[in-house]
Amino acid sequence: MGQSSFFNELLTSIAERGRSFADFGKTRTRDRSAADIIDMCHALLTGKGEASGIALALEILTSYTSLTDGEKTLFFEALGEDFSVSQHDTLGAAQAYLNNPTPEHLINLSAAAEPKRLELLRRLNQAPDATLSLVKMRADLLNRITVAPALKPIDHDFVSIFGSWFNRGFLELRRIDWQTPASILEKIIEHEAVHSLDGWDDLRSRIDPPDRHLYGFFHPRLNDEPLIFVEIALCDRIVDSIDTILSEKREHTDPSAATVAIFYSISNCQDGLKGIPLGSFLIKQVVEDLRHRFKGLRTFSTLSPLPSFRNWLNRQIELQGEIEDSGLRQVLAQLEQESWWLDEQLSRHIARQLLPLAAHFLCNARDSAGRIVDPVARFHLGNGARLERLNWNADTGADGLRKSCGVMVNYLYDLDEIERNHEQFASTGLVNAAQSVKRLTRMVSDTISEPTHDEDSTRQTEWPRAGQALQL
Amino acid sequence: MGQSSFFNELLTSIAERGRSFADFGKTRTRDRSAADIIDMCHALLTGKGEASGIALALEILTSYTSLTDGEKTLFFEALGEDFSVSQHDTLGAAQAYLNNPTPEHLINLSAAAEPKRLELLRRLNQAPDATLSLVKMRADLLNRITVAPALKPIDHDFVSIFGSWFNRGFLELRRIDWQTPASILEKIIEHEAVHSLDGWDDLRSRIDPPDRHLYGFFHPRLNDEPLIFVEIALCDRIVDSIDTILSEKREHTDPSAATVAIFYSISNCQDGLKGIPLGSFLIKQVVEDLRHRFKGLRTFSTLSPLPSFRNWLNRQIELQGEIEDSGLRQVLAQLEQESWWLDEQLSRHIARQLLPLAAHFLCNARDSAGRIVDPVARFHLGNGARLERLNWNADTGADGLRKSCGVMVNYLYDLDEIERNHEQFASTGLVNAAQSVKRLTRMVSDTISEPTHDEDSTRQTEWPRAGQALQL
Amino acid sequence: MGQSSFFNELLTSIAERGRSFADFGKTRTRDRSAADIIDMCHALLTGKGEASGIALALEILTSYTSLTDGEKTLFFEALGEDFSVSQHDTLGAAQAYLNNPTPEHLINLSAAAEPKRLELLRRLNQAPDATLSLVKMRADLLNRITVAPALKPIDHDFVSIFGSWFNRGFLELRRIDWQTPASILEKIIEHEAVHSLDGWDDLRSRIDPPDRHLYGFFHPRLNDEPLIFVEIALCDRIVDSIDTILSEKREHTDPSAATVAIFYSISNCQDGLKGIPLGSFLIKQVVEDLRHRFKGLRTFSTLSPLPSFRNWLNRQIELQGEIEDSGLRQVLAQLEQESWWLDEQLSRHIARQLLPLAAHFLCNARDSAGRIVDPVARFHLGNGARLERLNWNADTGADGLRKSCGVMVNYLYDLDEIERNHEQFASTGLVNAAQSVKRLTRMVSDTISEPTHDEDSTRQTEWPRAGQALQL
Amino acid sequence: MGQSSFFNELLTSIAERGRSFADFGKTRTRDRSAADIIDMCHALLTGKGEASGIALALEILTSYTSLTDGEKTLFFEALGEDFSVSQHDTLGAAQAYLNNPTPEHLINLSAAAEPKRLELLRRLNQAPDATLSLVKMRADLLNRITVAPALKPIDHDFVSIFGSWFNRGFLELRRIDWQTPASILEKIIEHEAVHSLDGWDDLRSRIDPPDRHLYGFFHPRLNDEPLIFVEIALCDRIVDSIDTILSEKREHTDPSAATVAIFYSISNCQDGLKGIPLGSFLIKQVVEDLRHRFKGLRTFSTLSPLPSFRNWLNRQIELQGEIEDSGLRQVLAQLEQESWWLDEQLSRHIARQLLPLAAHFLCNARDSAGRIVDPVARFHLGNGARLERLNWNADTGADGLRKSCGVMVNYLYDLDEIERNHEQFASTGLVNAAQSVKRLTRMVSDTISEPTHDEDSTRQTEWPRAGQALQL
Repeated sequence: MGQSSFFNELLTSIAERGRSFADFGKTRTRDRSAADIIDMCHALLTGKGEASGIALALEILTSYTSLTDGEKTLFFEALGEDFSVSQHDTLGAAQAYLNNPTPEHLINLSAAAEPKRLELLRRLNQAPDATLSLVKMRADLLNRITVAPALKPIDHDFVSIFGSWFNRGFLELRRIDWQTPASILEKIIEHEAVHSLDGWDDLRSRIDPPDRHLYGFFHPRLNDEPLIFVEIALCDRIVDSIDTILSEKREHTDPSAATVAIFYSISNCQDGLKGIPLGSFLIKQVVEDLRHRFKGLRTFSTLSPLPSFRNWLNRQIELQGEIEDSGLRQVLAQLEQESWWLDEQLSRHIARQLLPLAAHFLCNARDSAGRIVDPVARFHLGNGARLERLNWNADTGADGLRKSCGVMVNYLYDLDEIERNHEQFASTGLVNAAQSVKRLTRMVSDTISEPTHDEDSTRQTEWPRAGQALQL
Repeated sequence: MGQSSFFNELLTSIAERGRSFADFGKTRTRDRSAADIIDMCHALLTGKGEASGIALALEILTSYTSLTDGEKTLFFEALGEDFSVSQHDTLGAAQAYLNNPTPEHLINLSAAAEPKRLELLRRLNQAPDATLSLVKMRADLLNRITVAPALKPIDHDFVSIFGSWFNRGFLELRRIDWQTPASILEKIIEHEAVHSLDGWDDLRSRIDPPDRHLYGFFHPRLNDEPLIFVEIALCDRIVDSIDTILSEKREHTDPSAATVAIFYSISNCQDGLKGIPLGSFLIKQVVEDLRHRFKGLRTFSTLSPLPSFRNWLNRQIELQGEIEDSGLRQVLAQLEQESWWLDEQLSRHIARQLLPLAAHFLCNARDSAGRIVDPVARFHLGNGARLERLNWNADTGADGLRKSCGVMVNYLYDLDEIERNHEQFASTGLVNAAQSVKRLTRMVSDTISEPTHDEDSTRQTEWPRAGQALQL
Repeated sequence: MGQSSFFNELLTSIAERGRSFADFGKTRTRDRSAADIIDMCHALLTGKGEASGIALALEILTSYTSLTDGEKTLFFEALGEDFSVSQHDTLGAAQAYLNNPTPEHLINLSAAAEPKRLELLRRLNQAPDATLSLVKMRADLLNRITVAPALKPIDHDFVSIFGSWFNRGFLELRRIDWQTPASILEKIIEHEAVHSLDGWDDLRSRIDPPDRHLYGFFHPRLNDEPLIFVEIALCDRIVDSIDTILSEKREHTDPSAATVAIFYSISNCQDGLKGIPLGSFLIKQVVEDLRHRFKGLRTFSTLSPLPSFRNWLNRQIELQGEIEDSGLRQVLAQLEQESWWLDEQLSRHIARQLLPLAAHFLCNARDSAGRIVDPVARFHLGNGARLERLNWNADTGADGLRKSCGVMVNYLYDLDEIERNHEQFASTGLVNAAQSVKRLTRMVSDTISEPTHDEDSTRQTEWPRAGQALQL
Repeated sequence: MGQSSFFNELLTSIAERGRSFADFGKTRTRDRSAADIIDMCHALLTGKGEASGIALALEILTSYTSLTDGEKTLFFEALGEDFSVSQHDTLGAAQAYLNNPTPEHLINLSAAAEPKRLELLRRLNQAPDATLSLVKMRADLLNRITVAPALKPIDHDFVSIFGSWFNRGFLELRRIDWQTPASILEKIIEHEAVHSLDGWDDLRSRIDPPDRHLYGFFHPRLNDEPLIFVEIALCDRIVDSIDTILSEKREHTDPSAATVAIFYSISNCQDGLKGIPLGSFLIKQVVEDLRHRFKGLRTFSTLSPLPSFRNWLNRQIELQGEIEDSGLRQVLAQLEQESWWLDEQLSRHIARQLLPLAAHFLCNARDSAGRIVDPVARFHLGNGARLERLNWNADTGADGLRKSCGVMVNYLYDLDEIERNHEQFASTGLVNAAQSVKRLTRMVSDTISEPTHDEDSTRQTEWPRAGQALQL
């Protein structure tokens, strides 16, 4: 910590010194336009001075944050046009390489095909606190790409350079607990996205008890900024409802007697790191650390929502007029009844309809690119987890009902099979699911449009409860 | 420190786990051939498994270190052929881009023109302690490039990725003193390259007294490995001999009364980081930190050798037969006399011949690429320092006599002019030298082959002693 | 932190081991009586085993916390009787020493006159976390002493041993800010006693802004337990109302431009350390640290309440029937009017009556032991501060009105005179007050019972506003 | 570390400030006499100022170090006379207490019987770095006590206050390895007293290999000063010679496979802490830490010298003229032969004579106070270790031969019996020795003067090799 702030102070004093050499015109930092900043970017790429370079980089990043939304868009457009690859040079270099494929020609071609933005990003990164500023700049960029796809190549360069800077080798795992500085804890409160935190007491209940743990990834340059974090409950079984974990009146588990670790929340902190793979690596490192600390742990499982399930159900209705008499429309109507989940009979009735659909949704529903629809499922299955169990009435909070119809899933991380699962899912797209889940998928009628993988599904009505989680 | 070793332990246990999934054949790590390792590199690039990926990366890096020199050469050759850019794909992508310059085509072209080695290096970097291993691998590569220039494109990729990883923003400045862990101090002893260290007591004399300081750059991933370091003596004047600094009987300076900081040694620790710019940035940060700690400091100067001076003199003799009667050959012969520097009259005589030549050498001698010949001069002048003063009989150690004829140079870092000097030197190649040095260069006869910049040099015989160093 | 918890873990495992050797009977820890614990104390004093000793000490301290209030009283009574000085031995040793004053006899006498409790306390302190447990035990003891003065000698021993353990040389000053672990910050919230903290956001507003600071004393053995802490606001003048400091809409001061540091709150965290001098030393160290960090600071002052002023006023009424017509009774009645301080005319009227009385109270009112009545005044004057200024309507919070009638005081710490003030106050009891305060005291009628020091007081009606605080 | 130096800086600046108030006369610090310092001590005890107090304490401690040996003696003499208990007050207080044993009288008596030196020491301890200065002052005192026993009561006060300050609860265990700061490591080199260290490479061989460990006790106030340290080798058996451990060509043990930890050296660093019990507590904490780190460890044993064996043998000769023909005198003569231990036959012959005597010496030889003669034996047996085995030709270094005749002992720390052993040794003085050692003692003829505990000793000639060390 001291190290990093000492370093930033030094950089700042060097930058201050450079400021006097760098002629930034008479405009004040807050009054610059996108065009001013682009001019400074050109100067940064061509300028040779060290002190001025750092000062310029700092000035660019600081001025950028004061831009209006409209000016930011102009800035990105100019970034896309002015700092791209030169067509002329690239084709020339490619032709030269074709004529005579020497090492030198290859290097020239690589250089020509590298957008100037990459070097610009590297030079901007010299400024104090630059890495965080650039991560935030990319978040702004991502917001614009949906409406302005022409900006995509810029993002490609951000992803490329972030891939090096946030290479797994540079990430630091840290345990977060009640001894952690408040400046970090407040960011946990702010970024918890799955089961939101209601202030400091709530946070304490998730990090201070000996059966509750929280881990985050940090980067040496973004000192007190967690990149992503995960919350874990130590238990004696694979729990089937989030209330078991979060309720104030929950039972406490002696960590030395715990056999199961439940990963019940994983949240990204930086929008600007979207698509940079952090989560899967985090889970695996945390599993290793937990195993080391608590020798009794045998089972590592999540308790996860199906955040796009309800949306998908609604789309099914829209797509298929004839499904009307299949009862789905009726079930969806029942879900609108107030407190339906407290009426046990009704709840059972709905479950009988929805759980098979949920299983089918998770295992078979694909998007236009052929990927599993649910992002959480895609993440854990892609990591090599097994779809272990569906849990009914598992999350009756507002969000849980609205998005997941109250269902939650246990994805099981069986260390002995995650690599195999991962390979299978990556190459064939087949989901590794427990028998009980497979049986549920077979109960789904052919009226659902997607192809199912178990064609000979028999319509068993057996109540879906997974047996034992596989042991490590 | 703890953080980093904790992290490495986690990585290692994940790697261990992956080992069982990754089929590395039956060969033991130490018995693999270059071909085996190249096979594993292919597997790493195509394989998708996380644990296996880290295990593979670790296995590749470990196996590599056990290769014989010959096998290492084979490994690099295969790396050059198998993991390069695909000509076919590149030209195709270039053509597609020419036909239709869409963002997508541009991204495809950039991707096609990126050698597969870059992604390979990124994946290798996931292994525990990988960054250091890759730095050492590059050192091996550099050793081979002089005899095998075809390997140059590989180095280009190393430089490119090291440029991101060792971006200035990621370097950490640390003060090294007697409170520093022994594991780091022993590396200082090992790598001090300018005025070598004779064990722990000698080291202590350079880091423990309050008027002696040592700073190094570190990288978060190379925890206890200094990358480069610099040694400083606080003084009350610009000293003119290294003995004044290193002698056991030297005078001590009260740091609060010191006005001058002398940078008397700067050493790289990692051959594999050659060409990655570290040194100039280090000096500037150290200047800022010293200014902050010792308010009386006004002047920052080096006391540096001219390591290629003697070589250059010898080459002059070889090149020019007619110089024989100019006296240079005679002077070089006198330098072979034992303890010539103790004979005051002889020493003065030689100085009168050699000092102008040294000044000329530093300011004017160029290599075939038009660069200043002396690497130390090139480094400091390129940083924006001024050639302030030449000092006779300044280093009568074996090395100092053999390479620099006992001459040492003060390069002055005047914070108010380093940016200007840097720009001038970078754009025009002109050396900023003090008047006294310029006068010396004018004393050199036209028999010296390189063009001098001061054509109208008058042959003043004035003894070359710079007046006062410019103040900050 | 790691160090300390590592140490505690080791101690605990040694204690666990000892538990098997130490025969604590069959009672469970929570079911022990005071008599059981006293038995264990005897065993601890005579027992020689190391592991058993630590185990016994831990068992005693743990059992003690489970005692009922009544049992705790019994425990202290037994501690007073069984572990005291032996009359017989002491008189014998005294006689022997008188007969023959050899060094050995002196040592014997000292030993005989030392209560066994001292050695008991030392041995108890071996247990993990024992120091904190003993501090809490003393807090229990102090609660009982008012009703059971016979327990006083026990406290004398606590004070004696705490005097060694909490010797100033062992206290650690730490800066507390938003980077401080939450486990420490929650204790600050809990113990702030002067201007109470309303949760984490309120705390943040006192430690995170660059013009707000908080320092605490810690002890190496009580790792995360602050002993005492002080809050400071950096300002550009000696502020005259707490609202200026605490209001959400307060003005912010650039720390580098600040000239005045206001100590506006100082709170003890450990009742069990009452009477162990910590506060004055804390203030002086903080002054030194602030001076070092913020070069512009010239003036160090408090903004303090008069917590016993209202009580004293009430007592004056009780004591003196004849004072009735002096107007004091009427003023006190006016203070009961709701929001009287918002009525400017009324407020001015009351001020004219009360401010002279407040000045008189601070300078002259003495308790039966001849000490200044107000504890806050006694503390700061005893430290060498000067009574600089009274501020009207300075604290209109509930507490401020109820205890201090809304008045607050600036005690000025002028580094050049605190030693002299301290000596004067300690030897003569004379209060060093600013001229404006002295003038106020002279306005008080002779009807007030205590002797005033300025007999020739002239009845100036000048509004009491101190001029400039003395400069450092 | 930072914490402590930050604290010392603050103390120093407060002390500097106080210096101006404290009138120390015109003498410079280095020129003060013992009488000057004693005057300052009186001032410190009566003075009330805070800043002056710290300044005075610092001045006293600094001046003291500049005293000549003679002046130091004068200083201690004055300390003995002027700062002792007042006879008059003590007897008066004792009488008052006898007449009326109230709590107040008891407190008064305790106070009267406390030498003023105790408060003086507490006040001196406020100065920066005072604790270390006082430890060194006591070392000076101990040097004088042998010739001036009248100074003993002063030492009694040092011991009393050090007992509180160095209470076990305040000691910190630290692992010392190659990552430890050089400033600490050099103190290890300096203070290793059992098997001396020949510079940094030698030190590294004892702390860097994974089967070698070093632990030290530190005190929060003596930051980088180890108090005592112990060296450990991890092995697969109880080794029988120091060469097995220290030889450069020694075999290395995989720590995870190690079953035995050998404590082969324990050294005190501070003469001034003599008699303050540190060592036994250190060993037990280290055992706990090693057990935690290396799960395979079952046996904890020392490999220790018998430093007073040869002396004792010589004394036997002196005491008993008639022993001449018993062969002991002849054996001692043989020990003077050069390299006798290389002559296998001679060595065996000597062993047959000396090993029984060594066993007898360790188990039975007592000093005039009835204590076991050998200090190392006394230490380990008092800690509860068992005398497990004697090893012949175990240390053929110069010291080992001269003091211990080449014999070394394994003292076994069996966690299950150390408390019992300790109690037995403390109460009865009986040594717990292995059967093989007991058999050796029975071989000793009655000509040796001390009473043996096994009277019916049979004269078995069996070669003394202990079987297996008891397992934990």
